[in-house]
Amino acid sequence: MSLIKVGVIGIGNMGRSHAKLLAEGMINGAILTAVCDSYQDQLESFVRNLSGEVQVYRDEDEFLNDSDIDAVLISTPHYDHPSLAMKAFSKGLHVLIEKPAGVYTKNVVEMNEAALESGKVFGIMYNQRSNPIYQKLREIILSGELGEIKRTNWIITDWYRSQSYYDSSEWRATWQGEGGGVLLNQAPHQLDLWQWTTGLMPKKVHAYCSNGKYHDIEVEDDITAYVEYENGATGVFITSTGEAPGTNRFEIAGDRGKIVVENNKLTFYRLTQPEREFNATFTGGFGKPEGWTIDIPIKGKHTEHQGIIQNWIESIKEGKPLLAPGEEGIKGLEISNAIYLSSWLNEPVELPINAELFYEKLQEKINHSTFQKKYVGKVNLDVAGTH
Amino acid sequence: MSLIKVGVIGIGNMGRSHAKLLAEGMINGAILTAVCDSYQDQLESFVRNLSGEVQVYRDEDEFLNDSDIDAVLISTPHYDHPSLAMKAFSKGLHVLIEKPAGVYTKNVVEMNEAALESGKVFGIMYNQRSNPIYQKLREIILSGELGEIKRTNWIITDWYRSQSYYDSSEWRATWQGEGGGVLLNQAPHQLDLWQWTTGLMPKKVHAYCSNGKYHDIEVEDDITAYVEYENGATGVFITSTGEAPGTNRFEIAGDRGKIVVENNKLTFYRLTQPEREFNATFTGGFGKPEGWTIDIPIKGKHTEHQGIIQNWIESIKEGKPLLAPGEEGIKGLEISNAIYLSSWLNEPVELPINAELFYEKLQEKINHSTFQKKYVGKVNLDVAGTH
Repeated sequence: MSLIKVGVIGIGNMGRSHAKLLAEGMINGAILTAVCDSYQDQLESFVRNLSGEVQVYRDEDEFLNDSDIDAVLISTPHYDHPSLAMKAFSKGLHVLIEKPAGVYTKNVVEMNEAALESGKVFGIMYNQRSNPIYQKLREIILSGELGEIKRTNWIITDWYRSQSYYDSSEWRATWQGEGGGVLLNQAPHQLDLWQWTTGLMPKKVHAYCSNGKYHDIEVEDDITAYVEYENGATGVFITSTGEAPGTNRFEIAGDRGKIVVENNKLTFYRLTQPEREFNATFTGGFGKPEGWTIDIPIKGKHTEHQGIIQNWIESIKEGKPLLAPGEEGIKGLEISNAIYLSSWLNEPVELPINAELFYEKLQEKINHSTFQKKYVGKVNLDVAGTH
Repeated sequence: MSLIKVGVIGIGNMGRSHAKLLAEGMINGAILTAVCDSYQDQLESFVRNLSGEVQVYRDEDEFLNDSDIDAVLISTPHYDHPSLAMKAFSKGLHVLIEKPAGVYTKNVVEMNEAALESGKVFGIMYNQRSNPIYQKLREIILSGELGEIKRTNWIITDWYRSQSYYDSSEWRATWQGEGGGVLLNQAPHQLDLWQWTTGLMPKKVHAYCSNGKYHDIEVEDDITAYVEYENGATGVFITSTGEAPGTNRFEIAGDRGKIVVENNKLTFYRLTQPEREFNATFTGGFGKPEGWTIDIPIKGKHTEHQGIIQNWIESIKEGKPLLAPGEEGIKGLEISNAIYLSSWLNEPVELPINAELFYEKLQEKINHSTFQKKYVGKVNLDVAGTH
């Protein structure tokens, strides 16, 4: 089969990185044939430095209608993911969107419907799903090895960002430009993995978000969310861009022990007898079930963005299952929207949330915004080492 | 100076252990001269097995009026701590109470006033304060080495208890007998250390408590509390008796890095430049302050209950400062009461809480209780290894 011709729209930090991978032949079976960006001044010079012939577009419709592409990788600001994806599906193109799926679930539902109707391959850049440690975690939990989940806890505060990051472009960390802060830009990976590895979506969320706590921005840079699941389990999710060095520690307690993922290690504290069974039969007063500390070996390579793009191309060419189907993007976003809504309403919210209410509240944030960015240096940040 | 003559009232699990330490000469400068318990059947045979002459009382007033004691160690059920301490102060006795200080702050305030008036030495059995790791943590934080605190997080779920523990006596884990569950019996140590090591009391608490989630009891055995501090910092405290093996991990993030206390190790992730300063001056977009991982050496021995009793005796004899002054017992209890109240009212509460309202709500819990313990085996549990 011939090479899949890919166009990239949105040539900011991540888009440049994706375009380079494709242009440099790092993705088997695919080639970069077009790019589109209406905002980047140096688009032509960027393209001149790429290998091969690459068409350059300023207008998204011309890009989608006229360019020689089979598939499109969308790495524009978040708001545009659903509308662009829907346009692309209507043109019969395969689509890979950057995370998050969108800013609000209302139009992500429409995007998912359009994807289904189109029959095209629809992926999302949840590159952390290509990390073998989370694949192993998911395997252990879904196999039942951990038993019924009692509690989840993710402290993901190692998304440190300085003020200069937020000052690097106009759209960043604004209600209008980005639709949120750490929850929409940095933490979507963990919001997705939280549900993907456990197989559990919260049913109730109560959250506290702080806007501009550590930075001169109008959106949140620090959040704590408490959740409850259908089975009675509870969870906590903490994220911030204002802490250094920060923490990335995911703990899941279950009837058969607990698992901790931290510092690229997966440790399973495994009970030799389920706790519920021990509780029901032990007669000694003080005492607990025997537990073994097990270092779970992690095999395979974390292939990151490259792995997700490769998997998407293989799905287009060979029908290989997607590691991160685009339709699943709504799950992390639903949690994220619930966290905002709970914080804005100052009360717990049930999932699925009232998507119309969330949309209205978000419009209020945008319309009532009086925030002015004091300094915007429009630079292309080096994304090596980010996600 | 002659030996301090100590009486122990409440000869349950902990009281026996304390009485033995005193009778066996494990506390320098003190001797056990009397014990009192109206409920323990085998009190006389327990005393016969101790060294020395020990008077035995069934009635608390006779014990306080007639026995040959200078000081009293109160290890009765929690409710009686304040009333017994006040009686003891009125008799001119020094007092050491088991934790918690009481069940509700209303009468703990009165106890503290009585202690002050009496001029006697008043201690509380916060034996974890004798752990050098928490002493070191407190020293680092209060010295300013960590900088201003941004976030605290304590997962203290390794207080596992089986149903047989709760079945071991009638008063345990009931509103009437104990006034609560894990918050009043197991977690008071960490509630105290949380504020003692950081020097910070929460100003707002929003908590979720689950009653009888993992055990056939009427009180809470699983809680998650979110707090906010005066300086804007946030915190989370999670505790449960239903998880095995459980976790004991205390993380404190500050402007100069973060500290984690886990597995008897104190690790300081120390920034070479304060984060706030870095944030204000860095111009590189992505990037974070340099951090060093430092294992802080812990010197000294965790002397546990023995250390607290010894310190109390030395304070009586030599005026040595108390490691755990009785008056400070109200701090952890105030947090504990706030957690209950928030959970019962299903809304956030400010500290100091409305102590009258808490007392009323607690009486409702007691008066409306219909819970019947199905099996009560009145046994003396082996407390070796507990706290």
